[in-house]
Amino acid sequence: MGTVVPPWKQLVLGAIEANSHLNHSSYIQLATIGLSGRPSNRTVVFRGFEENSDTIRINTDIRSRKIGELKHCPFSEICWYFSDSWEQFRINGRIDVIDASNPDPIKLQKREKAWFDSSIKSRLNYLCPTPGLPCNNEQPNQEAHLDPSSGPVVEYCLLLLDPDKITYYVNLNSDRRFIFSSVLTATGEKCWTSERVNP
Amino acid sequence: MGTVVPPWKQLVLGAIEANSHLNHSSYIQLATIGLSGRPSNRTVVFRGFEENSDTIRINTDIRSRKIGELKHCPFSEICWYFSDSWEQFRINGRIDVIDASNPDPIKLQKREKAWFDSSIKSRLNYLCPTPGLPCNNEQPNQEAHLDPSSGPVVEYCLLLLDPDKITYYVNLNSDRRFIFSSVLTATGEKCWTSERVNP
Repeated sequence: MGTVVPPWKQLVLGAIEANSHLNHSSYIQLATIGLSGRPSNRTVVFRGFEENSDTIRINTDIRSRKIGELKHCPFSEICWYFSDSWEQFRINGRIDVIDASNPDPIKLQKREKAWFDSSIKSRLNYLCPTPGLPCNNEQPNQEAHLDPSSGPVVEYCLLLLDPDKITYYVNLNSDRRFIFSSVLTATGEKCWTSERVNP
Repeated sequence: MGTVVPPWKQLVLGAIEANSHLNHSSYIQLATIGLSGRPSNRTVVFRGFEENSDTIRINTDIRSRKIGELKHCPFSEICWYFSDSWEQFRINGRIDVIDASNPDPIKLQKREKAWFDSSIKSRLNYLCPTPGLPCNNEQPNQEAHLDPSSGPVVEYCLLLLDPDKITYYVNLNSDRRFIFSSVLTATGEKCWTSERVNP
């Protein structure tokens, strides 16, 4: 039995290809519920889908504010606008926060794989002072060093977003709009339905 | 007494100018709290600042889902990424929903002004079938017509976001990050403080 690729994932892959000449085409906006109950929204990088899955990979620092927010409310909506093809995806789902303390060995393996899949430059980000804290100019400029063969540092955290509803705008300005919703079958498999709605 | 422009607004105006050759530089991601308690996130167009103010104008359709969300929780965070200068603004504040039923004549005047400031093409959007409802292909393709001199249709709604916290990333990948926070003075005026934080 082959893996069935959900229809919306085909559309995302097509949009990625059509916009691949733009550096910012992998930049997505991730909304979460802030601890004050207000919305939070920031740009993060789409790091690909997990193998044979429609789960979306995002790298982040365990010390960033979104970790606390996601532990409080694990739901998120990603907004992904492709500026060359004018397509928009709104991807709603639940986020699994996988840090070094995760008890599941399979999840830790995924975290390790995602760590080695990222560039040395982006790995070095996790050695920087705590993001969002007041900047202390006095602190010695430590020469960050990282052995390329060493595994994930404790600050590195993998986020896996499991989508359950996608709204797709064929063209943002007007045109067509579709909603893809997932339902679980009796055997626990995810099944997708789609509907065309007014733009 | 002249109007003091808040420091973050100067930075936004600078970024708009530096990225003005890109059509999508006025596209921003607006996060709200969905009625289910999950985050919502979508691309909208920045329609400028209100005159002599740091309030942000956004046009929308009264029938869109965000209206109900904002009536339930008026807070929002805008994420604004400038792809050419690599700057990011996260603008958090409260949104005032101004529709035709608003009792305040000054707000209705602002709504009318924003209506006439938008193009005929974007005004025509408000005559389309209800956004997000199932698409009924059977319906007759009405020839929408709009007199350029007639005022806002009832479907048109002006959103005014009054910012109270801005996080500014000089460069998204690394570099510097600042937080601007507003405090109200004893005389009820808004006053801004800024702090440099770790990126």
